Amino acid sequence: MKIPPVKGTRDFYPPDMAVRNWIIDGWKRVSLRNGFEEYDGPIFEYLKMFQIKSGDEIVEQLFSFKDRGDRELALRPEITPTLARMVNQKISSLPMPLKWFSVPRLFRAERPQRGRLREFFQWNVDIIGVESVLADAEVIFCALDYLREAGLTPNEITVKISSRKLMAAVLKKIGISEKHLDSLYPVLDKRDKVPLGTFKQMLNKKVPDARMAGKVWDFMDLKAVSDIKKIIEPDDEINEAIDKLAVLFDWLKRMSVVDYCKFDPGVVRGLAYYTGIVYEIYDKAGELRAIGGGGRYDDLLKQFGGPDIPATGFGMGDCILGVLLEQRGLLKPNPQKLDYFVACVEPALSEEDAVKLVAELRTKGYSADFSYRSTSLSKQLKQASARNAKKCIIIGDEFKNNDLVVKDMATSKQELIKLDKFFTALGTGPEPPQADTLRR
Amino acid sequence: MKIPPVKGTRDFYPPDMAVRNWIIDGWKRVSLRNGFEEYDGPIFEYLKMFQIKSGDEIVEQLFSFKDRGDRELALRPEITPTLARMVNQKISSLPMPLKWFSVPRLFRAERPQRGRLREFFQWNVDIIGVESVLADAEVIFCALDYLREAGLTPNEITVKISSRKLMAAVLKKIGISEKHLDSLYPVLDKRDKVPLGTFKQMLNKKVPDARMAGKVWDFMDLKAVSDIKKIIEPDDEINEAIDKLAVLFDWLKRMSVVDYCKFDPGVVRGLAYYTGIVYEIYDKAGELRAIGGGGRYDDLLKQFGGPDIPATGFGMGDCILGVLLEQRGLLKPNPQKLDYFVACVEPALSEEDAVKLVAELRTKGYSADFSYRSTSLSKQLKQASARNAKKCIIIGDEFKNNDLVVKDMATSKQELIKLDKFFTALGTGPEPPQADTLRR
Repeated sequence: MKIPPVKGTRDFYPPDMAVRNWIIDGWKRVSLRNGFEEYDGPIFEYLKMFQIKSGDEIVEQLFSFKDRGDRELALRPEITPTLARMVNQKISSLPMPLKWFSVPRLFRAERPQRGRLREFFQWNVDIIGVESVLADAEVIFCALDYLREAGLTPNEITVKISSRKLMAAVLKKIGISEKHLDSLYPVLDKRDKVPLGTFKQMLNKKVPDARMAGKVWDFMDLKAVSDIKKIIEPDDEINEAIDKLAVLFDWLKRMSVVDYCKFDPGVVRGLAYYTGIVYEIYDKAGELRAIGGGGRYDDLLKQFGGPDIPATGFGMGDCILGVLLEQRGLLKPNPQKLDYFVACVEPALSEEDAVKLVAELRTKGYSADFSYRSTSLSKQLKQASARNAKKCIIIGDEFKNNDLVVKDMATSKQELIKLDKFFTALGTGPEPPQADTLRR
Repeated sequence: MKIPPVKGTRDFYPPDMAVRNWIIDGWKRVSLRNGFEEYDGPIFEYLKMFQIKSGDEIVEQLFSFKDRGDRELALRPEITPTLARMVNQKISSLPMPLKWFSVPRLFRAERPQRGRLREFFQWNVDIIGVESVLADAEVIFCALDYLREAGLTPNEITVKISSRKLMAAVLKKIGISEKHLDSLYPVLDKRDKVPLGTFKQMLNKKVPDARMAGKVWDFMDLKAVSDIKKIIEPDDEINEAIDKLAVLFDWLKRMSVVDYCKFDPGVVRGLAYYTGIVYEIYDKAGELRAIGGGGRYDDLLKQFGGPDIPATGFGMGDCILGVLLEQRGLLKPNPQKLDYFVACVEPALSEEDAVKLVAELRTKGYSADFSYRSTSLSKQLKQASARNAKKCIIIGDEFKNNDLVVKDMATSKQELIKLDKFFTALGTGPEPPQADTLRR
């Protein structure tokens, strides 16, 4: 009986797994050097947890099910609600501020398409307990620290930054009442994500007054903050939001990542819980969906039954990022290497010695392997080479006198060495990796 | 609104995550040095895939649900069916034999108890395409290579080894018909897992003849293979299975792990698909459920619509292992360290310089952080110490002349150094970790 995989999921064969590990290891390494600690939650939570504040789009895409006790559960579509739950649970013992990151596997019952799957990994970086816009700058820096190290330049990606507070103040000034804002954001978020005609229809439905709708459009199309007064007369609320954006850009400049950043009031974010600075990271060619995005969500912990604590963070999925890095030739997974491959001149005679030697090497901490195929020495040497072995140990006639032939695979130099001397020389374990392999 | 976590799931706060990472990193490192390549599959598959050969116990414990297309899906309770599906899918392009490992997150709708959760991680190591019992020995070695490195001795754990072929031959010789064997195995598997009275009832129901049931009992209680003739007269099939076990033990001896291993015909394994050597790893005190187990499943790929290819492998969960390692004081997660903590004598005056310096250090690949709390220098130095910083950079009055104070946190020595010299000395990146941190 042959059964296919479920569409929208991925099988990670070893070469695919190497790419996944390379991306995730990079996320983790950059998070750690930025001073974040790793956490994770369960793959499933109570369904209602995701219905509180995530917004309609996510709720529609939930995979939900019941357990035997008839409890309604759902696979997590994002990790921020879990983060809010976990922080609230231990709020009295957690020292603020928290700098936490996670690489959860997430699930959305979407129609699968390029760069959009029903199961994916998402890097999440959050700072909880800091009101200052410096925290927003730090999480943006962290995202760019990764993307820059991966080789992406300001010519290739842009962080489009805006502010929900600015948008709210402008919309109110335009004449839209505060109570309509929450339902308007998911519509405005679609401006660059659906065809223009569709967006205009959606906007007109929400804002029937053509003059008002026009001003909303003009605001979202602004290229510079200073042009805002061409649309409306800034009030205190607007000026305060503009000042905060200016402070954010000052921080990003000091952190040497401002070249990647630009003000773009067209950025809204689809999720309902954002309250301040919001941003999305795009490929400059504009061919792909957002690589990542985030913002400030100062009310979420309170809405989850906790205290009033400010928070900010971003998420970046592995699918779009993988497509972009591949396009740019920047996917560089580390090949699996072996310290030793043990080959036999006469496999039928020496298999037992080879296996014993391999086991001893592994026990000492070295990676080592042999061939299950009883084949010629030259074919075994080819296998050693294909497996990226640094050295090949050849067991031949000399082994009767406890002599090993050790071949350096890079230089092809061979040397004869006594078994006991070989093990003495192995010492306490394998060589540490070089500094540059730690950095990339 | 406060929502609790679902019972049987775990929240991984940073200290818990450090333990999880330490266990999983160890599994991965040992797999790689044993020459295995990593793979993974999706979290969910078609429900029917798990109903083919996994056995009733697993099927009862499935979390299943429907997608919007009304397809019946299930969260994976084990990864072996996925492995069989993936190998069959690419059978013509995969070079045999395969040595693959994975650390899937798995799900079982069980009643949660100590060491038994509804969501857990399981290390899986498999060799596909090798008929020789050497492959069974190699996967057992790999499991023990990890457990031994973690610090567990033969006084603490035992691999109980038996053979489904031996059991089948003995049961047939006792007089039980071949067609009843598949449904008998899950019952026999319960011998050490349910109260004795319960097991006897289960056995009597399956084998009503008291003399036959007594012989089954006597066989499962055997201490040495050689005693088998006290129960029945060995036939060719029995002798062949005994010979294979003897060869396995010879390999384990050559690999220097035979001290951990003993013959125990009481081991059956619950899963339906085993065909040869089977084993389970137990704590010697007998306080815990099996730490892991595995065996040969030569028919599975064929049953999944593929060719007739032999296979063998084991699985080890993180829950029981974690309990055992904690009991023994062998849980040694790596503390998170910082290369640099940047402190300010006057935070209000120097925050901008501190943030700039931190960003530069991170960009160069060093882990670095600062304090969001505008607090005294002595408190910042305490933070640096709590964060395991190797060095603390102090920005004070001297910074006006581009001088930094760099304090070595281990020796408490301080030195004054020019900013440009400091960055020149940083060179190409952080020091590589020491060899011993790579080994444990």
